[in-house]
Amino acid sequence: MLQWLQHYRRSMLPGDISAGIVVAMMMIPQGMAYALVAGLPPVAGIYASIIPPLLYALFGTSSTQSVGPMAIISLMTASSLAPLAAPGSALYGVLAAQLALLSGGVLLACGLLRIGFLANFFSRPVMSGFMLGSAILIAWGQVVPLLGAMPPAVHWPSAMLGLGALAVLVWARLYMAGALRRTGLSPAAADIGAKLAPMLVVVGATALVPALELEALGVATTGNVPAGLPGLNLATSSAHWQALLQPALLIGFMVFLISMSGAQTLALKRGEKLGSNRELAGLGAANIGSALSGGFPVTGSISRSAVNFAAGANSQLASIITAALLALALVAPTGWLALLPLPVLAATIIVAVLGMLDLSTLSTAWRYDRADAAALLATGAGVLVLGVEAGVVVGVALSMGALIWRASRPHIAVLGRIPGTEHFRNVDRYSTETAPGLLMLRVDAGLFFGNVEAVNERIEDELAARPSTRHLVLVLSAVNAIDTSALFGLGELNTSLRQRGVLLHLAEVKGPVMDRLRHSTLLQALNGRLFLSAAMAWDELAPGAAP
Amino acid sequence: MLQWLQHYRRSMLPGDISAGIVVAMMMIPQGMAYALVAGLPPVAGIYASIIPPLLYALFGTSSTQSVGPMAIISLMTASSLAPLAAPGSALYGVLAAQLALLSGGVLLACGLLRIGFLANFFSRPVMSGFMLGSAILIAWGQVVPLLGAMPPAVHWPSAMLGLGALAVLVWARLYMAGALRRTGLSPAAADIGAKLAPMLVVVGATALVPALELEALGVATTGNVPAGLPGLNLATSSAHWQALLQPALLIGFMVFLISMSGAQTLALKRGEKLGSNRELAGLGAANIGSALSGGFPVTGSISRSAVNFAAGANSQLASIITAALLALALVAPTGWLALLPLPVLAATIIVAVLGMLDLSTLSTAWRYDRADAAALLATGAGVLVLGVEAGVVVGVALSMGALIWRASRPHIAVLGRIPGTEHFRNVDRYSTETAPGLLMLRVDAGLFFGNVEAVNERIEDELAARPSTRHLVLVLSAVNAIDTSALFGLGELNTSLRQRGVLLHLAEVKGPVMDRLRHSTLLQALNGRLFLSAAMAWDELAPGAAP
Repeated sequence: MLQWLQHYRRSMLPGDISAGIVVAMMMIPQGMAYALVAGLPPVAGIYASIIPPLLYALFGTSSTQSVGPMAIISLMTASSLAPLAAPGSALYGVLAAQLALLSGGVLLACGLLRIGFLANFFSRPVMSGFMLGSAILIAWGQVVPLLGAMPPAVHWPSAMLGLGALAVLVWARLYMAGALRRTGLSPAAADIGAKLAPMLVVVGATALVPALELEALGVATTGNVPAGLPGLNLATSSAHWQALLQPALLIGFMVFLISMSGAQTLALKRGEKLGSNRELAGLGAANIGSALSGGFPVTGSISRSAVNFAAGANSQLASIITAALLALALVAPTGWLALLPLPVLAATIIVAVLGMLDLSTLSTAWRYDRADAAALLATGAGVLVLGVEAGVVVGVALSMGALIWRASRPHIAVLGRIPGTEHFRNVDRYSTETAPGLLMLRVDAGLFFGNVEAVNERIEDELAARPSTRHLVLVLSAVNAIDTSALFGLGELNTSLRQRGVLLHLAEVKGPVMDRLRHSTLLQALNGRLFLSAAMAWDELAPGAAP
Repeated sequence: MLQWLQHYRRSMLPGDISAGIVVAMMMIPQGMAYALVAGLPPVAGIYASIIPPLLYALFGTSSTQSVGPMAIISLMTASSLAPLAAPGSALYGVLAAQLALLSGGVLLACGLLRIGFLANFFSRPVMSGFMLGSAILIAWGQVVPLLGAMPPAVHWPSAMLGLGALAVLVWARLYMAGALRRTGLSPAAADIGAKLAPMLVVVGATALVPALELEALGVATTGNVPAGLPGLNLATSSAHWQALLQPALLIGFMVFLISMSGAQTLALKRGEKLGSNRELAGLGAANIGSALSGGFPVTGSISRSAVNFAAGANSQLASIITAALLALALVAPTGWLALLPLPVLAATIIVAVLGMLDLSTLSTAWRYDRADAAALLATGAGVLVLGVEAGVVVGVALSMGALIWRASRPHIAVLGRIPGTEHFRNVDRYSTETAPGLLMLRVDAGLFFGNVEAVNERIEDELAARPSTRHLVLVLSAVNAIDTSALFGLGELNTSLRQRGVLLHLAEVKGPVMDRLRHSTLLQALNGRLFLSAAMAWDELAPGAAP
């Protein structure tokens, strides 16, 4: 806990301060916008940006992770709560906090159970497809607030403000860094400056509201924002808790995956090491903190963390400074926040999520591995057609299917002797000699439930191709483990071979595997023998072999 | 299709006839009993035993599989339908057929999509735990019909009949084969004879009903059985179809797993090869057939198939004969079936499912691998506490967790040169020499999303332990594939190492892997070089190495 503080050096302070300020300027419009995506009042996004990063700084391991509201998690929140309460109702806000509490509990429990290895659950193309589908879904959901009415109807004052903001933001995304560079700013500073465009647009648009009397024209604004953090308010209906449990599992899962995928990229750039179990604990604490301070589920934001990193963050102190600035914004007179026009927030959301569209993974996968590209597109389509929660399930199913498919085809080589040596190699790749009646197979994978059938099938095929086989030697030099399913599989193979007059031998069994096999009856039941090496098996079993 | 018929020899006929008769005698009480478990009238079990095995014989690949009602699938059927209709109602029967239709459709679709490799989804201990929990749940559900009342109340006439039948059946299971052997029967014939005990008990008890006027005493019987197959009757409410979709997925999955686990054991005994995709098609057709003939979800029964095998079945003709005999039983006067006492059927169910209790897997796993034993017990507890459907989900989660855990810890060796040779081996296992500034790592697994983080972490650890490293050589001799996720991982590693002044080289890249890498930008971006062999990398990169 707080290891980074023990190693803090004064030279790290300037970077942390500048990053803290830049990220705060990014966080204010983003937090409010993502609260809207979650179906909550914009101020909830500010709440969710104060306590969570402080708790993450205490328990997490990434030096540059920026924890707070994030578009996809907000979308999942809205989709989970939609069947239970009307957006804007008091119950909705209470349930959003409960969902954060449950998600945080799930994450914390996973951290304590040390199952952080589940971060390997999603393949990169599946994750990219999930983000692609979610981004399109989020952008689509902002069309109504952007235009102030359901298309084809348009509320012109809202639409002009919204589309104007959109045009400015798109320009800023594409050209502002270049324009700043031409004024003499360094490329890095220009890039960071361009990230402040949403804040400038939001402030400018908010100033326009009273100036042009836009509220009287029917432009929606965020409305009154209460000062200070709200009190704790959790419902006690057990039916609600139960209904939120499954969404909380899915949200906890995605909070972890999204946060890790961003943090790992940044950690690699610094040669920094993340602890996945401590990350789970940090994200769990952050979500519980969000629940207790009127927020909703939060995660590490890839885009915001990248800005934090680029703006010079050296430690979690940058995030603490960001949180402090947001807290200040909340205790300062918040009247101006009430005038923030919703069409402009919708424009910031659309530009932010379209910036998430990662088409490079799709194009790389398309050229490199069509199956991975298909998984990407299927996951994206799953999110668009079936919804964001079903999209997670589709993604897990595709990743797991790929994992099982891979596990179920272990590499198995028929071995032959390199003449005159004690070396045994794949007969398909080396010039080797084999002995009649003797079949030697090397399995290049641990034996376990996922490949036990495949190994048996391959053995049957090889035996069918060599009906005169009398001795089958399994060379286990590459087998680091044999699980209970494979133990049964070997036992059944042994019985089956005995009935067919073929002896089953094992060779080059590794020490740890042998220790475990001694706790089973396989070695006593074995038809054939145990050999220390393939060469010793050859010397004994090859007809006419020189001893 | 019907390959077995093309190779049929007259010598196979006697075995098929005797097995067909024996299995029919076993199927009549079992089918009716498992219909009761499914919450259906007993006659539905006879319906489900006629068309399904005929269709399986047409499409399936196992020569001895006996397809029809099965206890666990019936339990899953009852648990799926319970929220939708009252057992015994007309709607319930219609929904049971719809569930079979949907399950069959799922299986058929999986067969056409060729995803039979999913049979590797469950580890053996997880399957055993699932069956253990289900068997206890089924036996427990039969206590009320056995005693004729909800305990502690007891309906004495029913209880005496039920407990009497139970005592006879337990005796038969334990001692009847021995008793028959002492009369001079061969051990095989005695074992088969003992399997007919349930039929004898059921027939005997049915004769007692009119003789002792048990119905007047309040003993429940199966009631009138309509002759012939029922007409097709499927509901059209889309809400019902939707509600049945998820249960149908789970049931289809378990139908396949249960059927395959039995069929594979028997196939291994004959050196016969099953086609998992054709098995999916066969089971799918069988379930669709069951739906169209008034039945409910069916699968290959492990215990019945074993009897079929032992009684001499040589081909699917045995199952066709069984089906023909059951059809005869249905067109013959069925009045006697109406008198079948339910407590006796409950006794046959209890004895049958307790016979499924496979404690040997638990004891083997306990001695051999505590983690597998824990998975078994957790799955069993999941079924008992959360229900049979949640039990499937728990089982999948545990198996997948094990798979990911395994995949996320690939074996990685630091290589050194065996002095004076061109051989490179694990420095921990062989006496080798290494060169300063040169780190050679061999990854003994394909690179993919499941291990890309683990590989990166191990590389960082090894680099941290050798801060003077200038060249990192990844020896890919055991890497048969690199997926898109791992491609990105290597690219990021390359960038990160370049920033730290370490060159990344690849050696012994296999042909198919190299072909694929040429469709990416990794090779152009690579800091270091490609070497054909580890020895060539050593010669170039080891300081002062002899060229």
